[in-house]
Amino acid sequence: MALGEFDLIQKYFTRPTPQAVLGVGDDCALLQPAAGMQWAISSDMLVEGRHFLSTVRPERLGHKALAVNLSDLAACGAKPVAFTLALALPRVDEAFLAGLAQGLFDLADAHGIGLVGGDTTAGPLNLCITVFGEVPPGQALRRDGARAGDALWVSHPLHGGLGDARLALEAFRGHVSLDGADFEAVRTAMEQPQPRVALGLGLRGLATAAIDVSDGLVGDLRHVLRRSGVGAEIGLADLPIGPVLARQPQQQQWQCCLAGGDDYELLFTAPPAAGAAVQAAAAAAGVGARCIGRLTAEPGLRLLDAQGRAVPLQLQGFDHFAAGA
Amino acid sequence: MALGEFDLIQKYFTRPTPQAVLGVGDDCALLQPAAGMQWAISSDMLVEGRHFLSTVRPERLGHKALAVNLSDLAACGAKPVAFTLALALPRVDEAFLAGLAQGLFDLADAHGIGLVGGDTTAGPLNLCITVFGEVPPGQALRRDGARAGDALWVSHPLHGGLGDARLALEAFRGHVSLDGADFEAVRTAMEQPQPRVALGLGLRGLATAAIDVSDGLVGDLRHVLRRSGVGAEIGLADLPIGPVLARQPQQQQWQCCLAGGDDYELLFTAPPAAGAAVQAAAAAAGVGARCIGRLTAEPGLRLLDAQGRAVPLQLQGFDHFAAGA
Repeated sequence: MALGEFDLIQKYFTRPTPQAVLGVGDDCALLQPAAGMQWAISSDMLVEGRHFLSTVRPERLGHKALAVNLSDLAACGAKPVAFTLALALPRVDEAFLAGLAQGLFDLADAHGIGLVGGDTTAGPLNLCITVFGEVPPGQALRRDGARAGDALWVSHPLHGGLGDARLALEAFRGHVSLDGADFEAVRTAMEQPQPRVALGLGLRGLATAAIDVSDGLVGDLRHVLRRSGVGAEIGLADLPIGPVLARQPQQQQWQCCLAGGDDYELLFTAPPAAGAAVQAAAAAAGVGARCIGRLTAEPGLRLLDAQGRAVPLQLQGFDHFAAGA
Repeated sequence: MALGEFDLIQKYFTRPTPQAVLGVGDDCALLQPAAGMQWAISSDMLVEGRHFLSTVRPERLGHKALAVNLSDLAACGAKPVAFTLALALPRVDEAFLAGLAQGLFDLADAHGIGLVGGDTTAGPLNLCITVFGEVPPGQALRRDGARAGDALWVSHPLHGGLGDARLALEAFRGHVSLDGADFEAVRTAMEQPQPRVALGLGLRGLATAAIDVSDGLVGDLRHVLRRSGVGAEIGLADLPIGPVLARQPQQQQWQCCLAGGDDYELLFTAPPAAGAAVQAAAAAAGVGARCIGRLTAEPGLRLLDAQGRAVPLQLQGFDHFAAGA
């Protein structure tokens, strides 16, 4: 490598970290947890070809690597504090590194958090970020608190819906054709997701359970149902679908929205009486929130049309997208 | 994958975690930091072909991935609390995963810590562990506290020295030939390093600076010298050399010991009057400790023979081991 590991860290990944007692450059970072707070910790690894395409701009890759981790903190209602980055690089490409650092630090600055440590090595491109957040004891949003009768909610962009990231992936794969502006819109959704940190904080004491939608709404909902020991009904007519996806065939809309993945919206439950408070929390966070169903004592998940009739959707095997479209 | 990500985590990487408020299986792990303690955090990424060879037994790989991270906590004098694991796997090989988990949890159990979260994904083999430890405020061992006049110490196995891991690598590369027992001994040093956690705890309030030897004694010492604004002298005759390495040519002994890397011993400084206390801390931790030199106000690093004469060793370019041997 033209630029050694030490120089690379010094040049691109060392910034002042007022959040830390000791930041990048020693064996460990040192942080002083706020008195009485619990720490929420999450670690996500991004691999080229699986979590991002080689065509992604490095600024967006830096953003996304941190965003998907912040999304986990959001889903716990935790306030972000700091993060570490471990990075395997096939080669030292300074333009790539400068862009990656830019996207990473722009999002970190927006959330007031610092990069406190990590590792760089040669190897197939891989980004592993670990984030730390704080939450008062007993106030973390978990997957196991949903109760029969709770309303089921999902956040969404103010003027959009879920499923755009998956639609973009299908466009990249050549399975759907989109015009230039539509493609750019859904590509941005895929490459630059916005973690719903403010909403997560606003849902403390309000939501009974929460999860972030990374693997697809239905799949992630099943984790909540299993953990909470309940079932659910979703009204297909209530799903938030953005304008670009709304121009696709109905079946594809449902599939992208329900099983697309990479949305990083919050899926959460709350008592029916909390509807106005949920809407207020979403408005304060600058995002939309839609009630898409309710939880049931009867186990399993039922998808209903506007008349309340069960709709048998084949969402299994959705990884083979083309076959279902 | 025959075994899905969720099942894989459930089967191999989910154990009770009494250290955590909430362990594997939610968006985040939740930990309750002990009142008043600072948190030490370190993250290391291991890549096949760079940090381990494809021939390594999975048990040893699991051990090493955690050991190199615990070594960073040791170098800070922090007590290990918990860790996360992010894992990219080219395929689901259950024998490999079972072995990896065994090695990982055996070492975790030995240190009383739990795996509280992480991530698994498909991709080129990559292990990224982030460890958390605690240390009372102001007691962390850092790289910037060494003072001119301090003694320079390095830990070592009770009946061994530094450089064995590098000697094993050179044997794997075919650059040196070792008989079977010698090869197994140094191979174990390379594949199954023992993090000096107990020694790190014992050096709180005693050592003025510390670092773990991962990149080679001289290279890691230079980090301490730069951070502390001092220089150092090392007595070549005082270096701890194990019995296998001692049978190699003199030049190779020095090179493996001084610039080999992958040792995971602690290199530390302490006031001259603390010698007996350092020896007592090492004995209590079940490791050896050797005084190998002293720190100087004059910057730079000098290597001296038994008569105190400077020895001009070419340790630069040591990555091309064969040329120097």
